[in-house]
Amino acid sequence: MARIVMKFGGTSVADLDRIRTVAGRVKREVEAGHEVAVVVSAMAGVTNGLVRWCQELSPLHDAREYDTVVATGEQVTSGLLAIALQAVGVEARSWQGWQVPVRTDGAHGKARVEAIEGEELVRRMGVGQVPVMAGFQGIGPLGRVTTLGRGGSDLSAVALAAAVKADRCDIYTDVDGIYTTDPRIVPRARKLERISYEEMLELASVGAKVLQTRSVELAMKQRVRVQVLSSFEDKPGSLVVDEDEFVEQPLVSGIAYSRDDAKVTLRRVPDRPGIAASVFDALAGANVNVDMIVQNVGADGSTDMTFTVGKADLARAEDVLGRVRDELGYEALLADPEVAKISVVGIGMRSHTGVANTMFRALAEKGINIQVISTSEIKVSVLVSADYTELAVRALHTAYGLDGPAG
Amino acid sequence: MARIVMKFGGTSVADLDRIRTVAGRVKREVEAGHEVAVVVSAMAGVTNGLVRWCQELSPLHDAREYDTVVATGEQVTSGLLAIALQAVGVEARSWQGWQVPVRTDGAHGKARVEAIEGEELVRRMGVGQVPVMAGFQGIGPLGRVTTLGRGGSDLSAVALAAAVKADRCDIYTDVDGIYTTDPRIVPRARKLERISYEEMLELASVGAKVLQTRSVELAMKQRVRVQVLSSFEDKPGSLVVDEDEFVEQPLVSGIAYSRDDAKVTLRRVPDRPGIAASVFDALAGANVNVDMIVQNVGADGSTDMTFTVGKADLARAEDVLGRVRDELGYEALLADPEVAKISVVGIGMRSHTGVANTMFRALAEKGINIQVISTSEIKVSVLVSADYTELAVRALHTAYGLDGPAG
Repeated sequence: MARIVMKFGGTSVADLDRIRTVAGRVKREVEAGHEVAVVVSAMAGVTNGLVRWCQELSPLHDAREYDTVVATGEQVTSGLLAIALQAVGVEARSWQGWQVPVRTDGAHGKARVEAIEGEELVRRMGVGQVPVMAGFQGIGPLGRVTTLGRGGSDLSAVALAAAVKADRCDIYTDVDGIYTTDPRIVPRARKLERISYEEMLELASVGAKVLQTRSVELAMKQRVRVQVLSSFEDKPGSLVVDEDEFVEQPLVSGIAYSRDDAKVTLRRVPDRPGIAASVFDALAGANVNVDMIVQNVGADGSTDMTFTVGKADLARAEDVLGRVRDELGYEALLADPEVAKISVVGIGMRSHTGVANTMFRALAEKGINIQVISTSEIKVSVLVSADYTELAVRALHTAYGLDGPAG
Repeated sequence: MARIVMKFGGTSVADLDRIRTVAGRVKREVEAGHEVAVVVSAMAGVTNGLVRWCQELSPLHDAREYDTVVATGEQVTSGLLAIALQAVGVEARSWQGWQVPVRTDGAHGKARVEAIEGEELVRRMGVGQVPVMAGFQGIGPLGRVTTLGRGGSDLSAVALAAAVKADRCDIYTDVDGIYTTDPRIVPRARKLERISYEEMLELASVGAKVLQTRSVELAMKQRVRVQVLSSFEDKPGSLVVDEDEFVEQPLVSGIAYSRDDAKVTLRRVPDRPGIAASVFDALAGANVNVDMIVQNVGADGSTDMTFTVGKADLARAEDVLGRVRDELGYEALLADPEVAKISVVGIGMRSHTGVANTMFRALAEKGINIQVISTSEIKVSVLVSADYTELAVRALHTAYGLDGPAG
């Protein structure tokens, strides 16, 4: 017997038939003898519609009222699923964020969960009742409804799993697990049986958008074992767990890519102490996040400085750097939005060398020029021309032995 | 300066444009120097959709979950209207039933308001903030969301007006007031400037469905002055007030009709003590409400007993009376669903005689046969063949001098 939190996303509860299917799945776990709590999202499309209404009434609407409006989507699903569960003979009741309560800070629209008081839910699970908690929502310090930001139901589920000390948090979604890379690019991508929190974070933040990043961070912090699996198929998914749970740590778990960045190069910046600080202070002041950074020392007392920013921030970055050009004294600013970041991720890198070399060689063999390199403990990322995105991902997937059997 | 509760029904908040119009109306009252609180219904059609979902998942759904689901309709409107008010420069915030709190009993789906703790709302109105309360909902003794039954937002508004000691409760709806009778039948029907609670109750319960009956009862009990007015036109409506507010009490205020009843006659019932009790006990046991009752004493030790029941209950009434026929010993049961109840209502009847006579004479002049008569302190009702409904209403409207100028 285990204690399980099951979370169902918007497409899994998109209509009454799917809600009935979800009820059937929950019933199966209950009949297998498990203690089950459920977390639900709003039915697909509902949240977008509510958000649009708030926007149309006032682009600068009060975030507290926005939260009041959009939190209703999950409330509806929680009540409907409780009804569907009762209809198949499973004792169930809905719980809103303010009822549990799910206490959050007062940052409306993107609140942080501070505490879930799970005692009553645990007691009810112990006597066979299934709590159906509305995801994405909580109650703020002043008694108002808060929401956790888009994708927040994943966060609700992980936080609930931590609060009730669940053995596992199963996230049902429209993909059936975490893959070694995007199967649309590499048909021979393999589903990972398990992946560490750290790897998941690196993969998620560079493009594999299966689990909301904050929910993975919370799972890692609270040591919640998370399973990602399909609500439409009946097969095991991928487990996101602590690296201690790996008998053998894979060298490389996956290849991620992102085309959300743009490259900025400052040509012939005077090579004097503090110049980098001046550049990045100016960008930070304009709220521009900088990712990869390289600097080449030149021979003539000047240097070329290259970095990446989010594509959406590029115009702002050019503007702010243009305004401080005289102060910085650089010769030219070159911007290139046509780049892709390709990343190789694996906890095994910590104890192995040569991972980066394999990457560089594989890319060189395909004639792909590397523009920028950046590394972290479990990741090597390179910036290449966007035209080469698919070719690079496929080459690396093969080079690291990740290809599954041909389909 | 007055303190006003403004209530807007589903058609008044049916889309974003109408919500903006409502915001404009509220703003005008605020700018006139009044303290204002608002109560809103769900956007037209929303509640029906949510109810249908619950029904489809399970006809015998848990009323607690039903309440959780359907209460979201008002929650959405309250947040949207708060946003729309802020957008036109009016300070506002939404309040859900559990936040105020609106305390109710635990009769889910048709809960009774027990208390509204209005202090915080009064304080905020005092500093110029407009509370926008979600109507139709409250919080039960166990901390769950309750709803007050269909049309319950009227009840929320009147209860809030009582709690904050409002000078008036303005109910904005899709009609512009209370009429002397149904204008679809009598084009010269007049809008009443004011009407007493008692008259309103008699008119509402026999067909003029403008205000929910329970809300009128509550207004009468708490002496809340209610105004019914149109949210689409800009003119005064009808005031529902205590009869003390009338300088001169009208003899007859209105003519109501209802085709919701059926007539049942038991022929040749043995005329012995307790026989009526046996008949109506049997009906009460089957949950059949009986309205008008007449009994004619016969010469041969038997009697004819006639009464009306709701049309929806007729089959049940026939069934239960058929099963106790031997016990009761009546000769035949005659059922006639083709009847209409026509009522003349006016608080002036209390102090005047001859009101009923005017009715009987006017109907006789049109050759309309009266089947059953029943009277109360401020009402005379007759049952006639349904074919004569319109004719009877028009004849009485003229006979009591209610006709307005020709249109």
